[in-house]
Amino acid sequence: MPVDPQSDPYYRLRHSLAHVMAQAVLAIFPAGKVAIGPPIENGFYYDFDLPRPLTPDDLSEIERGMRAILAGNYPFIFREVSADEARVLFRDQPYKLELIDGLAKGLDEYGETAKGDTIISTYRQDTFEDLCRGPHLEHTGQIPPDGFKLMSIAGAYWRGDEKNPQLQRIYGTGWNSKAELDQHLFQLEEARRRDHRRLGKELGLFYFSDDVGPGLPLFTPKGEMLRHQMESYVREVQTRYGYQHVWTGNVVKESLYKKSGHYDAYRESMFPPMVESEDLVFRLKPMNCPSHMTLYKEMGVHSYRDLPLRFAEFATLYRYEDSGALHGLTRVRALTQDDCHIFCRPDQIEQEFGLAFNLIREVLETYKFSDYRVDLSLRGTSGKYIADDEAWDLAENALRTALDHYGVQYREAPGEAAIYGPKADFIARDVLGREWQLSTIQVDFIQPRRLGLEYVGEDNQPHTPVVLHRAVTGTTERFLGVLIEHFAGAFPLWLAPVQAMLIPITDKQMEYAQALRDRLAAVGLRVEIDDSRDRMQGKIRRAQLQKIPYMLIIGNKEQEAGAVAVRLRSGEDLGAIPVDSFIERAVQEVKSRA
Amino acid sequence: MPVDPQSDPYYRLRHSLAHVMAQAVLAIFPAGKVAIGPPIENGFYYDFDLPRPLTPDDLSEIERGMRAILAGNYPFIFREVSADEARVLFRDQPYKLELIDGLAKGLDEYGETAKGDTIISTYRQDTFEDLCRGPHLEHTGQIPPDGFKLMSIAGAYWRGDEKNPQLQRIYGTGWNSKAELDQHLFQLEEARRRDHRRLGKELGLFYFSDDVGPGLPLFTPKGEMLRHQMESYVREVQTRYGYQHVWTGNVVKESLYKKSGHYDAYRESMFPPMVESEDLVFRLKPMNCPSHMTLYKEMGVHSYRDLPLRFAEFATLYRYEDSGALHGLTRVRALTQDDCHIFCRPDQIEQEFGLAFNLIREVLETYKFSDYRVDLSLRGTSGKYIADDEAWDLAENALRTALDHYGVQYREAPGEAAIYGPKADFIARDVLGREWQLSTIQVDFIQPRRLGLEYVGEDNQPHTPVVLHRAVTGTTERFLGVLIEHFAGAFPLWLAPVQAMLIPITDKQMEYAQALRDRLAAVGLRVEIDDSRDRMQGKIRRAQLQKIPYMLIIGNKEQEAGAVAVRLRSGEDLGAIPVDSFIERAVQEVKSRA
Repeated sequence: MPVDPQSDPYYRLRHSLAHVMAQAVLAIFPAGKVAIGPPIENGFYYDFDLPRPLTPDDLSEIERGMRAILAGNYPFIFREVSADEARVLFRDQPYKLELIDGLAKGLDEYGETAKGDTIISTYRQDTFEDLCRGPHLEHTGQIPPDGFKLMSIAGAYWRGDEKNPQLQRIYGTGWNSKAELDQHLFQLEEARRRDHRRLGKELGLFYFSDDVGPGLPLFTPKGEMLRHQMESYVREVQTRYGYQHVWTGNVVKESLYKKSGHYDAYRESMFPPMVESEDLVFRLKPMNCPSHMTLYKEMGVHSYRDLPLRFAEFATLYRYEDSGALHGLTRVRALTQDDCHIFCRPDQIEQEFGLAFNLIREVLETYKFSDYRVDLSLRGTSGKYIADDEAWDLAENALRTALDHYGVQYREAPGEAAIYGPKADFIARDVLGREWQLSTIQVDFIQPRRLGLEYVGEDNQPHTPVVLHRAVTGTTERFLGVLIEHFAGAFPLWLAPVQAMLIPITDKQMEYAQALRDRLAAVGLRVEIDDSRDRMQGKIRRAQLQKIPYMLIIGNKEQEAGAVAVRLRSGEDLGAIPVDSFIERAVQEVKSRA
Repeated sequence: MPVDPQSDPYYRLRHSLAHVMAQAVLAIFPAGKVAIGPPIENGFYYDFDLPRPLTPDDLSEIERGMRAILAGNYPFIFREVSADEARVLFRDQPYKLELIDGLAKGLDEYGETAKGDTIISTYRQDTFEDLCRGPHLEHTGQIPPDGFKLMSIAGAYWRGDEKNPQLQRIYGTGWNSKAELDQHLFQLEEARRRDHRRLGKELGLFYFSDDVGPGLPLFTPKGEMLRHQMESYVREVQTRYGYQHVWTGNVVKESLYKKSGHYDAYRESMFPPMVESEDLVFRLKPMNCPSHMTLYKEMGVHSYRDLPLRFAEFATLYRYEDSGALHGLTRVRALTQDDCHIFCRPDQIEQEFGLAFNLIREVLETYKFSDYRVDLSLRGTSGKYIADDEAWDLAENALRTALDHYGVQYREAPGEAAIYGPKADFIARDVLGREWQLSTIQVDFIQPRRLGLEYVGEDNQPHTPVVLHRAVTGTTERFLGVLIEHFAGAFPLWLAPVQAMLIPITDKQMEYAQALRDRLAAVGLRVEIDDSRDRMQGKIRRAQLQKIPYMLIIGNKEQEAGAVAVRLRSGEDLGAIPVDSFIERAVQEVKSRA
């Protein structure tokens, strides 16, 4: 990802590190050719054409070389040169010569028309001079020698074109201190350890199959139990908040999307059409709104007294994401949205936004996302917006008022609203500090009008309702991916697919274990028995790896006392507890979603 | 629907009634032309070419004429004639002349090649002689004069071809006694009263929209609540029986159906393909089995100790039923099956069939389908069957043994099994005596083999598991259609979308009503307040029409006493009951699914 030299405080550091690395590489491979080496997010890279493939050992040697250069406190020296001077300077560097030819023609280093002016310049530290626009630090001594690390070697084509020679790219990360570097490496390791694709397999939650298709996950019994708990929970909260659930299936005539306007704006993201005849084409639903609005219409005449109507649905939607963009559960083609459409009068926007906001807050907090912010997209100064200023003012103020009322931190973004209404996006931070856009409330003045929705007002005249589109966790699939990483697979008890593993020490306790399982199942707990032939320690270890919240170990002593020896997945040993007490504890823990 | 003269005990009666009706019609319209008049299910019709359109009054006059003919005790007299004699006899009846020409060429009355011999014969009663093969009663006096009724007039083209002249068809129903006729008319009226398409609209449960497409229902909040209760109930029972739920979405690569064999056998019933490229074609899932089997494979190595695995899913499947065959919810294109696939060892078939049978029995009885029978489809004598005799014997005996064990009435149908395994179909009778095939258990030896499923046996060798396909209520949509008619919309409390309507007598009780609603909602009851301006009797009437189980009427007296005056939808008045007692009663009623 390209990095902006103006706004990125690490730009000079990482750019300088790239040059230092290039010097260290050429010290080892004097005949090596250098291509380009920009700073990127969290670090930098440089592409080389070398006589042999690099090994991890080479990286250590290059790092040592780099530290020696840093110790030399060499200044980074800028000079502007003519194209001809540059061609002489880089006469042994064919990639640089190609860049110089480009620069002379007003092209940038990627071969695209340059945005700024194309003077030709170089930066030199010590003996290494590189074709470069800068900027850089003042001297190599400003780079902390324990704040960087070379991370990996990858293949890369010159200018990204596979018809060109393949180069070797070295990635490095660079920071202002060892502490910063360590924090970054820890985060990387945590992200790797928590990667939901890896954990999904280890915990046996979901699979992708070539037979079914890319981006179309299959959920095992454990994965489905997670989905089911998540959706049941949101359904329960929605019911409590006065939402009603509807069902509109997965298939719709394409013509509906022509009426709603989605066909023009959204066709590229739809699955291919199902063509029955020229006049009858079906599409997989990529969104619920036109279906919910059609249902609103079919239900007959609505009075102003019937509003608001809040239609929620857990429908699986299908979007044909580019196969390169697919990523585990967080980017799929089958998306089960916890979607809701609120049909209301303009004077109800504030109340409904407040209600939706409260609902979202409750759900995010249950999932331990207590750190979130709100982006408020408002209209700009252009005249492109649907609906009049009065309606916009009403809606924008309603959103602001509700947010102020709850004391939520929010950022106003004038001009970022879509033409059909303002919206609020909820961006939550997970335990690794990564931000996820989860919930959304979008005001819509246009679709209800396009599809001809009406209600009869107090004045006995037909009016067009406003619709609020609202999602809480977004989609079940993506949110589950986020949750797996947020909890590192150690789900809270109420979510855990298996809540307790009964571990009989010998076969003699098997009958007691089965009776216990039935008793725990009868109060709604999800319990399994480890009846394998492994020894107790092996069974405990396996349950821990499966991140099962409770291990209930049963020996003779426990059986006689009507107890279970309780261990937590953290390793903590709670000792023997009477079965009744354990049940009370577990049921309470589930109920409170603690 | 054509009726078989050999097996239908009403054939002669209804055939004779058709002739008597034709005579009575010609008595009124002497210049009328007669076409054909066969017996059909429950009655008979005759097609006429008459100088003016018939009216309901004509039907009464025709009935009177028929009764006069019956009173005459005229014998039905058979005679065989030559084609030429027939042409003279029917010289004024052009349709009969066309039939005679056909018969002379070996065609039947529909213009198709006749199956039997084509002698030309007539039957005559009184003055009316008709071209006819018979058979008939002996004389008109054998027809009970109060056992028939002319039902309706419809347009019909001669020989069903719209290029031919349009005729007037009179439908009648005919029975052996007035009691039988009354019973039939009652059933017709009940079926009309209970028609789920009509009740669905009146109760506001579901709609079909031209914008969405034929056979693709939209469920309102009330309809969705019914679906949700139905599916939650089956899920609860399935969980108790050790089934696990999985999730496999709605879309699959077409190539999977080529592997499984469904592409060849089932393509015509699939929705049109979604063609991304020549090599990548998607289909809406018309069945779950290939997806569940793919998941089984993706989950890795299964040991004989892991079996049985029971994968259940409430997935909406899509089948492109012919638009003419669509019928409300009972024949749709979106079918949410309560589908399960049991992966087991051959020695587990009996146990698993017994378990599934028990589960089915429990569910059907909860839905008040206590009258059902089982059809057992077994292999025939041909050699076409997959798997060897030993496997078939094992499976067939397992099914029989389980049915015998539970003392269930079943009919063995040798030769009716599909080539891949025996099956048991459960056919339940509703309150109107109509039969519905709901549950199925199908043994499958072939698909697991085709898709390469394996488990490691006790012998450490790979084996192919047997799969049992099992549905309990069939599909949510169709079963809901059946339930609406079975209960005439008056669902048992646990299913009812709205369980109680709070009816404040005046606005003064509104606050108390709201507090009550919250209290009832907190224990999980679905309650609404009728806050309209209607009078109490109007509110009660509306709640009754909506078939809401409980009406809770609140006046001053009730409010002071902390009570509600309870009325049932039947009209029964239970008087004032303390709120606590009502809650206890209702919660218990829901819990027991009484």
